[in-house]
Amino acid sequence: IMESSISPDLLQQIAFIKEIDKLKYIERRTKLFNSNRRENDAEHSWHLAVMALILSNHADQPIDILKVLKMLLIHDLVEIDAGDTFIFDAAKNHTNTAEESLAADRIFGMLPDEQAEELKAIWEEFEARQTYEAKFARSMDRLEPLLQNASNQGGTWQEYNVQHQKVLEIQNVHACCSTTIDHYVQSVIEQSVQSGILKK
Amino acid sequence: IMESSISPDLLQQIAFIKEIDKLKYIERRTKLFNSNRRENDAEHSWHLAVMALILSNHADQPIDILKVLKMLLIHDLVEIDAGDTFIFDAAKNHTNTAEESLAADRIFGMLPDEQAEELKAIWEEFEARQTYEAKFARSMDRLEPLLQNASNQGGTWQEYNVQHQKVLEIQNVHACCSTTIDHYVQSVIEQSVQSGILKK
Ligand SMILES: [Ca+2]
Repeated sequence: IMESSISPDLLQQIAFIKEIDKLKYIERRTKLFNSNRRENDAEHSWHLAVMALILSNHADQPIDILKVLKMLLIHDLVEIDAGDTFIFDAAKNHTNTAEESLAADRIFGMLPDEQAEELKAIWEEFEARQTYEAKFARSMDRLEPLLQNASNQGGTWQEYNVQHQKVLEIQNVHACCSTTIDHYVQSVIEQSVQSGILKK
Repeated sequence: IMESSISPDLLQQIAFIKEIDKLKYIERRTKLFNSNRRENDAEHSWHLAVMALILSNHADQPIDILKVLKMLLIHDLVEIDAGDTFIFDAAKNHTNTAEESLAADRIFGMLPDEQAEELKAIWEEFEARQTYEAKFARSMDRLEPLLQNASNQGGTWQEYNVQHQKVLEIQNVHACCSTTIDHYVQSVIEQSVQSGILKK
């Protein structure tokens, strides 16, 4: 088989597939459930995708679940270049930085043009948080660490001395999307205060 | 907030979300790209889902990509109970064992009935390999370790003394789905023999 007979598009896609393996080395601050082991971005992305699949029946509006899955599967790829942005890090808790935009150009740019544009647009839609799908995806992205922290005696709340009010702010992303999930999140926060793993 | 006011369906789903965290501890034999670190099933499931998304434009037939993503995201959950089934292990290289069926009952059974049935049906469809979506998902599941082994001087082919003929058999799952991908896989196998990382 002549290498020249291989689809050039496929060769670009294979290079991309190899490149994104690096997501497995990007560590988050949050730890696995009932665990002391930090989660990596690939595991995190997988978990959010399954959560979205499972929880989409609680969405308050009709939802394009395929779009949500695409968002969640690729949302952290920019961190291969830009590193994990930790939400309780005051210096770098914003999203869609110039660094992340460059990362998106480089990483999605490895794909054939049309696909590169499609995935970059999906990532930008996620970051802009304007569409219902982007908001629902964001809700999943905040729900997982909440559950992890609650399972780990406060996890990063304790580790970084995060107070109740700050957690309320960060978790103010569910009401947009699902009253059921929002209601549950409020109860987890309340219980965390009551059990003393989250300071008021 | 009274705990009794939380949706019982949601509480079941949250228990499932916590349970499947265990997938992150199930180690595969195959290693990450250019690496000595074994991949876990959560990372693997994420990678296959992105691969399917990216490579679905090479599908020879119309494809329900949402179905494929669902399959790939959940295909290994049974391994939480049944353990990883290694393809080069002669004693346990079959799929859909009684053990895996019990695992599917238990794990998907944590979800609300309707969802449990839907996900178990998707898993069974994947395992039966009759539909085009199941075949395409299987193709992704075989492509990733091929690429990993080729990047790791033969990886598990070397480690378990696997010969060219056996790899051809195992990789005989792409022609069904994509002539482009199949052609590429043949070329990777040929090159692996030529470079001496796969014995003929
Ligand atoms: Ca992130």
